Amino acid sequence: MPFDATVLTMFPEAFPGPLGVSLIGTAWREQGLWSLETVDIRGFSKDKRGFLDDTPAGGGPGQVMRADVIASALDSVERRGRPLLYMSARGQPLTQARVRKWADGPGLIVLAGRFEGVDQRVLDARGFEEVAVGDAVLAGGEAAALVTIEACVRLVPGVLGQAESLSEESFEDGLLEHPQYTRPRTFEGLHIPEVLLSGHHALVRKWRAEQREETTRKQRPDLWARRTANQQPKGD
Amino acid sequence: MPFDATVLTMFPEAFPGPLGVSLIGTAWREQGLWSLETVDIRGFSKDKRGFLDDTPAGGGPGQVMRADVIASALDSVERRGRPLLYMSARGQPLTQARVRKWADGPGLIVLAGRFEGVDQRVLDARGFEEVAVGDAVLAGGEAAALVTIEACVRLVPGVLGQAESLSEESFEDGLLEHPQYTRPRTFEGLHIPEVLLSGHHALVRKWRAEQREETTRKQRPDLWARRTANQQPKGD
Repeated sequence: MPFDATVLTMFPEAFPGPLGVSLIGTAWREQGLWSLETVDIRGFSKDKRGFLDDTPAGGGPGQVMRADVIASALDSVERRGRPLLYMSARGQPLTQARVRKWADGPGLIVLAGRFEGVDQRVLDARGFEEVAVGDAVLAGGEAAALVTIEACVRLVPGVLGQAESLSEESFEDGLLEHPQYTRPRTFEGLHIPEVLLSGHHALVRKWRAEQREETTRKQRPDLWARRTANQQPKGD
Repeated sequence: MPFDATVLTMFPEAFPGPLGVSLIGTAWREQGLWSLETVDIRGFSKDKRGFLDDTPAGGGPGQVMRADVIASALDSVERRGRPLLYMSARGQPLTQARVRKWADGPGLIVLAGRFEGVDQRVLDARGFEEVAVGDAVLAGGEAAALVTIEACVRLVPGVLGQAESLSEESFEDGLLEHPQYTRPRTFEGLHIPEVLLSGHHALVRKWRAEQREETTRKQRPDLWARRTANQQPKGD
Protein backbone atom coordinates (compact mmCIF):
# COMPACT_ATOMS: atom_id res chain seq x y z
CA MET A 1 0.00 0.00 0.00
CA PRO A 2 1.57 3.32 -0.99
CA PHE A 3 2.24 6.16 1.44
CA ASP A 4 0.37 9.32 0.41
CA ALA A 5 1.55 12.72 1.65
CA THR A 6 -0.61 15.82 1.22
CA VAL A 7 0.75 19.22 2.26
CA LEU A 8 -1.49 22.24 2.86
CA THR A 9 0.68 25.27 2.15
CA MET A 10 0.66 28.83 0.87
CA PHE A 11 3.83 27.96 -1.08
CA PRO A 12 3.45 24.82 -3.22
CA GLU A 13 6.56 25.97 -5.11
CA ALA A 14 8.67 25.04 -2.03
CA PHE A 15 8.05 21.38 -2.95
CA PRO A 16 9.31 18.77 -3.74
CA GLY A 17 12.80 20.09 -2.82
CA PRO A 18 14.76 17.17 -1.32
CA LEU A 19 11.76 14.85 -1.77
CA GLY A 20 12.29 14.94 -5.52
CA VAL A 21 15.89 13.66 -5.58
CA SER A 22 17.80 10.41 -5.25
CA LEU A 23 16.08 7.11 -4.37
CA ILE A 24 13.15 8.88 -2.71
CA GLY A 25 12.44 10.90 -5.86
CA THR A 26 12.63 7.75 -8.01
CA ALA A 27 10.38 5.84 -5.61
CA TRP A 28 7.78 8.58 -6.02
CA ARG A 29 7.99 9.53 -9.70
CA GLU A 30 8.91 6.20 -11.27
CA GLN A 31 7.95 3.46 -8.84
CA GLY A 32 4.80 4.93 -7.31
CA LEU A 33 5.79 3.69 -3.84
CA TRP A 34 4.62 6.95 -2.31
CA SER A 35 2.98 10.16 -3.52
CA LEU A 36 3.25 13.88 -2.82
CA GLU A 37 0.40 16.34 -3.36
CA THR A 38 0.29 20.03 -2.40
CA VAL A 39 -2.90 21.99 -1.75
CA ASP A 40 -2.57 25.76 -2.15
CA ILE A 41 -4.28 27.34 0.85
CA ARG A 42 -4.48 30.61 -1.10
CA GLY A 43 -7.34 29.11 -3.12
CA PHE A 44 -9.60 28.93 -0.04
CA SER A 45 -9.85 32.56 1.03
CA LYS A 46 -13.28 33.70 2.32
CA ASP A 47 -12.44 37.25 1.40
CA LYS A 48 -12.88 39.12 -1.86
CA ARG A 49 -9.32 40.43 -1.53
CA GLY A 50 -7.94 36.91 -1.09
CA PHE A 51 -6.76 37.32 2.51
CA LEU A 52 -6.09 34.16 4.53
CA ASP A 53 -5.11 35.87 7.74
CA ASP A 54 -6.22 38.53 10.18
CA THR A 55 -4.88 40.32 13.26
CA PRO A 56 -4.45 38.31 16.52
CA ALA A 57 -7.38 38.47 18.94
CA GLY A 58 -6.14 40.27 22.06
CA GLY A 59 -3.55 42.23 20.09
CA GLY A 60 0.10 41.62 19.34
CA PRO A 61 2.36 41.69 16.30
CA GLY A 62 1.85 39.86 13.02
CA GLN A 63 -1.08 38.00 11.54
CA VAL A 64 -2.85 34.70 12.28
CA MET A 65 -4.17 32.25 9.64
CA ARG A 66 -7.96 31.99 9.80
CA ALA A 67 -9.61 28.80 11.07
CA ASP A 68 -12.30 28.80 8.37
CA VAL A 69 -9.77 29.07 5.53
CA ILE A 70 -7.66 26.19 6.87
CA ALA A 71 -10.80 24.09 7.45
CA SER A 72 -11.92 24.59 3.83
CA ALA A 73 -8.47 23.67 2.50
CA LEU A 74 -8.45 20.54 4.66
CA ASP A 75 -12.00 19.58 3.65
CA SER A 76 -10.94 19.61 -0.01
CA VAL A 77 -8.63 16.66 0.70
CA GLU A 78 -9.72 13.04 0.94
CA ARG A 79 -8.73 12.09 4.49
CA ARG A 80 -8.45 8.29 4.08
CA GLY A 81 -7.56 7.70 7.72
CA ARG A 82 -4.37 9.74 7.55
CA PRO A 83 -3.10 11.57 10.66
CA LEU A 84 -3.24 15.38 10.55
CA LEU A 85 0.02 17.08 11.49
CA TYR A 86 0.63 20.75 12.08
CA MET A 87 4.30 21.77 11.95
CA SER A 88 4.83 24.11 14.88
CA ALA A 89 7.46 25.14 17.39
CA ARG A 90 4.72 24.53 20.00
CA GLY A 91 4.51 20.84 19.14
CA GLN A 92 6.00 17.70 20.60
CA PRO A 93 9.37 16.87 19.05
CA LEU A 94 9.74 14.69 15.98
CA THR A 95 11.14 11.33 17.06
CA GLN A 96 12.03 8.16 15.20
CA ALA A 97 9.28 6.34 17.14
CA ARG A 98 6.63 8.75 15.84
CA VAL A 99 8.10 8.52 12.32
CA ARG A 100 7.91 4.70 12.41
CA LYS A 101 4.26 4.82 13.46
CA TRP A 102 3.33 7.21 10.64
CA ALA A 103 5.42 5.32 8.06
CA ASP A 104 3.44 2.15 8.86
CA GLY A 105 0.15 3.95 8.05
CA PRO A 106 -1.56 5.22 4.89
CA GLY A 107 0.31 8.54 4.78
CA LEU A 108 0.10 12.04 6.24
CA ILE A 109 -1.79 15.28 5.80
CA VAL A 110 0.58 18.07 6.86
CA LEU A 111 -0.37 21.69 7.47
CA ALA A 112 2.49 24.14 6.93
CA GLY A 113 1.60 27.40 8.68
CA ARG A 114 2.95 30.90 8.10
CA PHE A 115 2.74 34.25 9.92
CA GLU A 116 2.32 34.02 13.73
CA GLY A 117 0.56 30.66 13.33
CA VAL A 118 -2.90 29.21 12.83
CA ASP A 119 -6.12 29.92 14.78
CA GLN A 120 -6.09 27.34 17.57
CA ARG A 121 -9.75 26.41 17.04
CA VAL A 122 -9.17 24.61 13.73
CA LEU A 123 -6.30 22.65 15.30
CA ASP A 124 -8.56 21.61 18.20
CA ALA A 125 -11.70 20.97 16.13
CA ARG A 126 -10.01 18.78 13.54
CA GLY A 127 -7.53 17.06 15.83
CA PHE A 128 -4.21 18.19 14.40
CA GLU A 129 -1.13 16.75 16.11
CA GLU A 130 1.46 19.52 16.57
CA VAL A 131 5.00 18.48 15.61
CA ALA A 132 8.24 20.41 16.23
CA VAL A 133 11.38 19.74 14.20
CA GLY A 134 14.27 20.98 16.33
CA ASP A 135 14.00 23.56 19.10
CA ALA A 136 14.13 26.44 16.68
CA VAL A 137 11.63 28.80 15.08
CA LEU A 138 11.12 28.72 11.31
CA ALA A 139 9.56 31.21 8.89
CA GLY A 140 6.94 28.62 7.92
CA GLY A 141 6.14 24.94 8.23
CA GLU A 142 7.33 23.92 4.77
CA ALA A 143 10.94 22.98 5.61
CA ALA A 144 9.77 21.04 8.68
CA ALA A 145 7.19 19.24 6.50
CA LEU A 146 9.99 18.18 4.12
CA VAL A 147 11.97 16.73 7.04
CA THR A 148 8.97 14.87 8.45
CA ILE A 149 7.84 13.40 5.14
CA GLU A 150 11.39 12.38 4.18
CA ALA A 151 11.90 10.61 7.51
CA CYS A 152 8.69 8.61 6.91
CA VAL A 153 9.09 7.86 3.23
CA ARG A 154 12.56 6.34 3.58
CA LEU A 155 11.00 3.67 5.85
CA VAL A 156 8.34 2.72 3.28
CA PRO A 157 9.21 -0.80 2.04
CA GLY A 158 11.15 -0.75 -1.21
CA VAL A 159 12.09 2.94 -1.16
CA LEU A 160 15.71 2.60 0.02
CA GLY A 161 16.36 -0.82 -1.51
CA GLN A 162 18.70 -2.09 1.21
CA ALA A 163 16.42 -2.81 4.17
CA GLU A 164 19.45 -3.94 6.15
CA SER A 165 20.95 -0.46 6.30
CA LEU A 166 18.13 0.61 8.63
CA SER A 167 19.02 -1.65 11.54
CA GLU A 168 22.02 -0.02 13.29
CA GLU A 169 20.88 3.54 12.80
CA SER A 170 20.72 6.36 15.28
CA PHE A 171 17.73 6.33 17.65
CA GLU A 172 16.53 2.83 16.76
CA ASP A 173 17.73 1.52 20.13
CA GLY A 174 18.23 4.78 21.98
CA LEU A 175 21.85 5.19 20.83
CA LEU A 176 23.48 7.29 18.14
CA GLU A 177 25.36 5.67 15.28
CA HIS A 178 29.06 4.80 15.40
CA PRO A 179 31.50 6.80 13.25
CA GLN A 180 32.19 5.59 9.71
CA TYR A 181 35.43 5.30 7.74
CA THR A 182 36.27 4.25 4.21
CA ARG A 183 39.18 4.35 1.73
CA PRO A 184 41.75 5.86 1.50
CA ARG A 185 43.55 4.21 4.42
CA THR A 186 45.29 7.49 5.28
CA PHE A 187 43.73 10.92 4.83
CA GLU A 188 45.81 14.01 5.68
CA GLY A 189 47.88 11.92 8.09
CA LEU A 190 44.82 10.41 9.80
CA HIS A 191 44.45 6.64 9.75
CA ILE A 192 41.40 4.41 9.80
CA PRO A 193 41.22 2.90 13.32
CA GLU A 194 43.27 -0.35 13.25
CA VAL A 195 40.48 -2.53 14.59
CA LEU A 196 38.31 -1.81 11.54
CA LEU A 197 41.03 -3.21 9.27
CA SER A 198 41.71 -6.24 11.50
CA GLY A 199 39.14 -8.56 9.99
CA HIS A 200 38.05 -9.62 13.52
CA HIS A 201 34.30 -9.23 13.29
CA ALA A 202 33.74 -9.62 17.03
CA LEU A 203 36.28 -6.88 17.82
CA VAL A 204 34.72 -4.59 15.19
CA ARG A 205 31.29 -5.13 16.75
CA LYS A 206 32.64 -4.42 20.23
CA TRP A 207 34.46 -1.25 19.11
CA ARG A 208 31.36 0.05 17.32
CA ALA A 209 29.15 -0.66 20.34
CA GLU A 210 31.59 1.29 22.55
CA GLN A 211 31.68 4.16 20.05
CA ARG A 212 27.88 4.31 19.97
CA GLU A 213 27.76 4.59 23.74
CA GLU A 214 30.55 7.15 23.90
CA THR A 215 29.02 9.33 21.16
CA THR A 216 25.60 9.21 22.81
CA ARG A 217 27.03 10.15 26.23
CA LYS A 218 28.94 13.07 24.73
CA GLN A 219 26.48 14.44 22.16
CA ARG A 220 23.15 13.56 23.77
CA PRO A 221 23.31 13.30 27.56
CA ASP A 222 19.46 13.41 27.49
CA LEU A 223 19.20 10.21 25.41
CA TRP A 224 21.90 8.55 27.52
CA ALA A 225 20.10 9.38 30.77
CA ARG A 226 16.83 7.97 29.42
CA ARG A 227 18.59 4.80 28.30
CA THR A 228 20.36 4.17 31.57
CA ALA A 229 17.11 4.91 33.47
CA ASN A 230 15.29 2.33 31.32
CA GLN A 231 17.97 -0.26 32.01
CA GLN A 232 17.64 -0.13 35.80
CA PRO A 233 16.33 -3.49 37.02
CA LYS A 234 12.74 -3.25 38.28
CA GLY A 235 12.36 -2.65 42.00
CA ASP A 236 15.63 -0.68 42.23
CA MET B 1 26.71 42.58 6.46
CA PRO B 2 24.88 39.86 4.52
CA PHE B 3 24.55 36.27 5.71
CA ASP B 4 26.08 33.86 3.19
CA ALA B 5 25.02 30.22 3.15
CA THR B 6 26.96 27.61 1.15
CA VAL B 7 25.67 24.03 0.97
CA LEU B 8 27.87 21.11 -0.10
CA THR B 9 25.50 18.54 -1.57
CA MET B 10 25.17 15.79 -4.15
CA PHE B 11 21.74 17.25 -5.00
CA PRO B 12 21.84 21.00 -5.73
CA GLU B 13 18.40 20.57 -7.34
CA ALA B 14 16.93 20.12 -3.83
CA PHE B 15 17.50 23.86 -3.31
CA PRO B 16 16.22 26.53 -2.76
CA GLY B 17 12.89 24.83 -1.85
CA PRO B 18 11.33 26.83 1.03
CA LEU B 19 14.29 29.24 1.02
CA GLY B 20 13.11 30.64 -2.30
CA VAL B 21 9.61 31.70 -1.22
CA SER B 22 7.92 34.48 0.73
CA LEU B 23 9.88 37.20 2.53
CA ILE B 24 12.99 35.03 2.80
CA GLY B 25 13.04 34.46 -0.96
CA THR B 26 12.60 38.20 -1.61
CA ALA B 27 15.31 39.09 0.92
CA TRP B 28 17.69 36.83 -1.01
CA ARG B 29 16.81 37.43 -4.67
CA GLU B 30 15.74 41.07 -4.58
CA GLN B 31 17.22 42.66 -1.47
CA GLY B 32 20.54 40.79 -1.22
CA LEU B 33 20.22 40.52 2.56
CA TRP B 34 21.51 36.97 2.44
CA SER B 35 22.80 34.55 -0.22
CA LEU B 36 22.51 30.86 -1.04
CA GLU B 37 25.13 28.93 -3.00
CA THR B 38 25.28 25.19 -3.64
CA VAL B 39 28.46 23.23 -4.40
CA ASP B 40 27.92 19.93 -6.21
CA ILE B 41 30.06 17.33 -4.44
CA ARG B 42 29.81 15.13 -7.54
CA GLY B 43 32.31 17.42 -9.26
CA PHE B 44 35.08 16.44 -6.81
CA SER B 45 35.39 12.68 -7.35
CA LYS B 46 38.94 11.25 -7.23
CA ASP B 47 37.84 8.34 -9.34
CA LYS B 48 37.62 7.95 -13.11
CA ARG B 49 34.14 6.47 -12.69
CA GLY B 50 32.98 9.47 -10.64
CA PHE B 51 32.45 7.63 -7.38
CA LEU B 52 32.23 9.68 -4.18
CA ASP B 53 31.76 6.80 -1.79
CA ASP B 54 33.19 3.44 -0.86
CA THR B 55 32.33 0.52 1.44
CA PRO B 56 32.59 1.04 5.23
CA ALA B 57 35.90 0.04 6.84
CA GLY B 58 35.14 -2.89 9.14
CA GLY B 59 32.19 -4.00 7.03
CA GLY B 60 28.48 -3.31 7.24
CA PRO B 61 25.72 -2.22 4.90
CA GLY B 62 25.71 0.78 2.58
CA GLN B 63 28.40 3.19 1.49
CA VAL B 64 30.41 5.97 3.14
CA MET B 65 31.32 9.33 1.54
CA ARG B 66 35.09 9.65 1.11
CA ALA B 67 37.05 12.12 3.22
CA ASP B 68 39.23 13.30 0.34
CA VAL B 69 36.23 14.09 -1.88
CA ILE B 70 34.50 16.11 0.85
CA ALA B 71 37.77 17.91 1.65
CA SER B 72 38.21 18.95 -2.00
CA ALA B 73 34.62 20.20 -2.23
CA LEU B 74 35.10 22.21 0.98
CA ASP B 75 38.45 23.62 -0.18
CA SER B 76 36.78 25.02 -3.31
CA VAL B 77 34.73 27.35 -1.08
CA GLU B 78 35.98 30.60 0.41
CA ARG B 79 35.65 30.01 4.16
CA ARG B 80 35.44 33.67 5.35
CA GLY B 81 35.22 32.70 9.01
CA ARG B 82 31.98 30.79 8.61
CA PRO B 83 31.23 27.83 10.90
CA LEU B 84 31.21 24.38 9.26
CA LEU B 85 28.09 22.33 9.99
CA TYR B 86 27.46 18.69 9.16
CA MET B 87 23.80 17.69 9.29
CA SER B 88 23.71 14.35 11.08
CA ALA B 89 21.51 12.33 13.38
CA ARG B 90 24.68 11.94 15.51
CA GLY B 91 24.88 15.66 16.18
CA GLN B 92 23.79 17.90 19.00
CA PRO B 93 20.23 19.15 18.52
CA LEU B 94 19.42 22.37 16.69
CA THR B 95 18.35 24.96 19.25
CA GLN B 96 17.26 28.57 19.00
CA ALA B 97 20.36 29.56 21.00
CA ARG B 98 22.68 27.97 18.40
CA VAL B 99 20.62 29.53 15.59
CA ARG B 100 20.95 33.01 17.17
CA LYS B 101 24.72 32.61 17.42
CA TRP B 102 25.06 31.58 13.77
CA ALA B 103 22.62 34.27 12.56
CA ASP B 104 24.82 36.92 14.20
CA GLY B 105 27.84 35.72 12.17
CA PRO B 106 28.93 35.89 8.53
CA GLY B 107 26.95 32.82 7.41
CA LEU B 108 27.28 29.05 7.30
CA ILE B 109 28.94 26.32 5.28
CA VAL B 110 26.69 23.26 5.54
CA LEU B 111 27.60 19.73 4.47
CA ALA B 112 24.60 17.59 3.51
CA GLY B 113 25.66 13.94 3.62
CA ARG B 114 24.11 10.93 1.92
CA PHE B 115 24.51 7.13 2.20
CA GLU B 116 25.60 5.84 5.63
CA GLY B 117 27.37 9.15 6.30
CA VAL B 118 30.75 10.77 5.84
CA ASP B 119 34.22 9.48 6.74
CA GLN B 120 34.78 10.72 10.29
CA ARG B 121 38.32 11.92 9.54
CA VAL B 122 37.24 14.86 7.38
CA LEU B 123 34.76 15.92 10.08
CA ASP B 124 37.54 15.79 12.71
CA ALA B 125 40.30 17.32 10.56
CA ARG B 126 38.25 20.31 9.40
CA GLY B 127 36.29 20.88 12.60
CA PHE B 128 32.72 20.30 11.43
CA GLU B 129 30.05 20.80 14.10
CA GLU B 130 27.47 18.00 13.85
CA VAL B 131 23.87 19.21 14.02
CA ALA B 132 20.72 17.08 14.38
CA VAL B 133 17.30 18.39 13.37
CA GLY B 134 14.78 16.30 15.30
CA ASP B 135 15.45 12.83 16.72
CA ALA B 136 14.77 11.16 13.40
CA VAL B 137 16.87 9.73 10.59
CA LEU B 138 16.72 11.33 7.12
CA ALA B 139 17.75 10.08 3.69
CA GLY B 140 20.24 12.93 3.39
CA GLY B 141 21.21 16.21 5.00
CA GLU B 142 19.47 18.49 2.50
CA ALA B 143 16.10 18.88 4.27
CA ALA B 144 17.88 19.47 7.59
CA ALA B 145 20.10 22.09 5.89
CA LEU B 146 16.96 23.91 4.68
CA VAL B 147 15.57 23.99 8.22
CA THR B 148 18.84 25.24 9.71
CA ILE B 149 19.43 27.96 7.12
CA GLU B 150 15.80 29.15 7.29
CA ALA B 151 15.95 29.41 11.09
CA CYS B 152 19.07 31.59 10.79
CA VAL B 153 18.06 33.75 7.84
CA ARG B 154 14.76 34.87 9.38
CA LEU B 155 16.79 36.45 12.20
CA VAL B 156 19.00 38.46 9.82
CA PRO B 157 18.05 42.13 10.26
CA GLY B 158 15.57 43.34 7.65
CA VAL B 159 14.52 39.90 6.39
CA LEU B 160 11.19 39.58 8.22
CA GLY B 161 10.41 43.28 8.31
CA GLN B 162 8.65 43.32 11.68
CA ALA B 163 11.43 42.87 14.23
CA GLU B 164 8.82 43.03 16.99
CA SER B 165 7.26 39.70 16.00
CA LEU B 166 10.39 37.90 17.18
CA SER B 167 10.12 38.77 20.86
CA GLU B 168 7.41 36.47 22.32
CA GLU B 169 8.29 33.43 20.25
CA SER B 170 8.77 29.86 21.32
CA PHE B 171 12.15 29.05 22.95
CA GLU B 172 13.30 32.65 23.34
CA ASP B 173 12.77 32.47 27.11
CA GLY B 174 12.47 28.72 27.57
CA LEU B 175 8.70 28.67 26.99
CA LEU B 176 6.55 27.77 24.01
CA GLU B 177 4.26 30.33 22.44
CA HIS B 178 0.66 30.93 23.53
CA PRO B 179 -2.19 29.86 21.22
CA GLN B 180 -3.45 32.37 18.65
CA TYR B 181 -6.97 33.29 17.58
CA THR B 182 -8.39 35.64 14.96
CA ARG B 183 -11.67 36.40 13.20
CA PRO B 184 -14.31 35.04 12.83
CA ARG B 185 -15.48 35.30 16.44
CA THR B 186 -17.21 31.89 16.20
CA PHE B 187 -15.85 28.98 14.15
CA GLU B 188 -17.87 25.76 14.03
CA GLY B 189 -19.41 26.61 17.40
CA LEU B 190 -16.04 27.43 19.02
CA HIS B 191 -15.55 30.93 20.40
CA ILE B 192 -12.44 33.05 20.81
CA PRO B 193 -11.60 33.03 24.55
CA GLU B 194 -13.51 35.95 26.15
CA VAL B 195 -10.45 37.52 27.74
CA LEU B 196 -8.88 38.16 24.34
CA LEU B 197 -11.91 40.26 23.31
CA SER B 198 -12.09 42.10 26.67
CA GLY B 199 -9.74 44.92 25.79
CA HIS B 200 -8.02 44.54 29.19
CA HIS B 201 -4.37 44.41 28.19
CA ALA B 202 -3.15 43.29 31.60
CA LEU B 203 -5.61 40.38 31.64
CA VAL B 204 -4.61 39.39 28.10
CA ARG B 205 -0.94 39.39 29.13
CA LYS B 206 -1.70 37.28 32.21
CA TRP B 207 -3.79 34.79 30.24
CA ARG B 208 -1.10 34.43 27.58
CA ALA B 209 1.63 33.94 30.19
CA GLU B 210 -0.45 31.18 31.82
CA GLN B 211 -1.08 29.55 28.43
CA ARG B 212 2.63 29.60 27.64
CA GLU B 213 3.41 27.82 30.90
CA GLU B 214 0.60 25.30 30.50
CA THR B 215 1.54 24.48 26.89
CA THR B 216 5.21 24.06 27.82
CA ARG B 217 4.36 21.76 30.77
CA LYS B 218 2.12 19.61 28.59
CA GLN B 219 4.03 19.50 25.29
CA ARG B 220 7.61 19.78 26.52
CA PRO B 221 8.13 18.49 30.05
CA ASP B 222 11.89 18.57 29.26
CA LEU B 223 11.92 22.34 28.64
CA TRP B 224 9.68 22.89 31.66
CA ALA B 225 11.99 20.90 33.95
CA ARG B 226 15.02 22.86 32.72
CA ARG B 227 13.21 26.14 33.29
CA THR B 228 12.07 25.34 36.80
CA ALA B 229 15.57 24.03 37.66
CA ASN B 230 17.09 27.32 36.45
CA GLN B 231 14.65 29.31 38.57
CA GLN B 232 15.63 27.63 41.87
CA PRO B 233 17.29 30.21 44.10
CA LYS B 234 21.02 29.54 44.54
CA GLY B 235 21.95 27.44 47.55
CA ASP B 236 18.66 25.52 47.54
